[in-house]
Amino acid sequence: MATKRAKKATKASSRSALRGPEVVHDILESTIQELAQVGYAALRVEDVAQRAQVHKTTIYRRYPDKAELVREALRQAFQTALAIPDTGSLRSDLLQVGTALVETFSSDRGRAMGLMLMSESPDHVPLRRIMESLRSQHDTIPKAVLDNAVARGEIRSSVDGKLLLQALTGTIHYHVNMLHAPPTRKVLEAIVDLLLQGANPQT
Amino acid sequence: MATKRAKKATKASSRSALRGPEVVHDILESTIQELAQVGYAALRVEDVAQRAQVHKTTIYRRYPDKAELVREALRQAFQTALAIPDTGSLRSDLLQVGTALVETFSSDRGRAMGLMLMSESPDHVPLRRIMESLRSQHDTIPKAVLDNAVARGEIRSSVDGKLLLQALTGTIHYHVNMLHAPPTRKVLEAIVDLLLQGANPQT
Repeated sequence: MATKRAKKATKASSRSALRGPEVVHDILESTIQELAQVGYAALRVEDVAQRAQVHKTTIYRRYPDKAELVREALRQAFQTALAIPDTGSLRSDLLQVGTALVETFSSDRGRAMGLMLMSESPDHVPLRRIMESLRSQHDTIPKAVLDNAVARGEIRSSVDGKLLLQALTGTIHYHVNMLHAPPTRKVLEAIVDLLLQGANPQT
Repeated sequence: MATKRAKKATKASSRSALRGPEVVHDILESTIQELAQVGYAALRVEDVAQRAQVHKTTIYRRYPDKAELVREALRQAFQTALAIPDTGSLRSDLLQVGTALVETFSSDRGRAMGLMLMSESPDHVPLRRIMESLRSQHDTIPKAVLDNAVARGEIRSSVDGKLLLQALTGTIHYHVNMLHAPPTRKVLEAIVDLLLQGANPQT
């Protein structure tokens, strides 16, 4: 047992020394996997360390606590969905965001995140803080997209950009995770066009 | 043990005999609770019977198999959300559907359902059949609502009514279960107005 532990320690420290970025990747990926399996409340940094085959201290050196670790893991996992588009038109900006969301929600980590969000208590303070921080990052998208659209005269001034993005996100999430039918490009275009043109006749 | 079982049996059969509708209610409610706890695949009619304090046969007399039992439990649980509105205008029809959806998704059974839908494999055939049957019932809403709206000239002919309802459902679900912020009446109105008027300037 002692030998096994020593061997593991050697392996772990050589891993840390030799390939930093890969170790970071493994730590964050293992965090997502643990989250998917046990949820935030039950997640232990020790278990992440074991899964990533690193020392607990290797993790704590980079992330002072569990909340920091999880925040960073989620931020990385949702990087594509957090990218701000600037394609030149509101419609294609929304299509680009939508495409990233379809991809994110369809992935294992997307499903894991969704499940975690639904099953955790909304009163869980550390998790709520993490989600708020991710959300405020996500909320920079509507601001940027909307500012551009306003500048181009593509949007009614009374439209709440945050709500527009939430409607896009919610509709895509519903298709992927509830209907289990990830939108095709055609469906995605229909969703975006509904949000842009509305159902009412334009008189 | 034998005495306990006999006592339980007496209790159970007197329950069945004395108050049929209440027993049905208890069976369906227990089904939802079991679903929430173990999911569809692991659900056992025996456990539902035990939770509802009835004989297994009391259940099988009404519902020939697990799939029938679950279908009926879900249909009952989502009765409000499956009601077809006819208020005289598309906007207030959508507000009525939306209000029922907020209520349904915010309830324990709504969260349970959502979790089950997200965590079950979409390839699970019996569950998929149940969901398809519920969905086809839910899809009668857009048809009825849209037919009325078309007759009143309130909707563009190119609008996909199913997608309109999916966007409403998805946006509300996202607010309730992902943002943990059930839409207030004001937010619900903003969602419906976005879907009706669209974000583009109406020229």
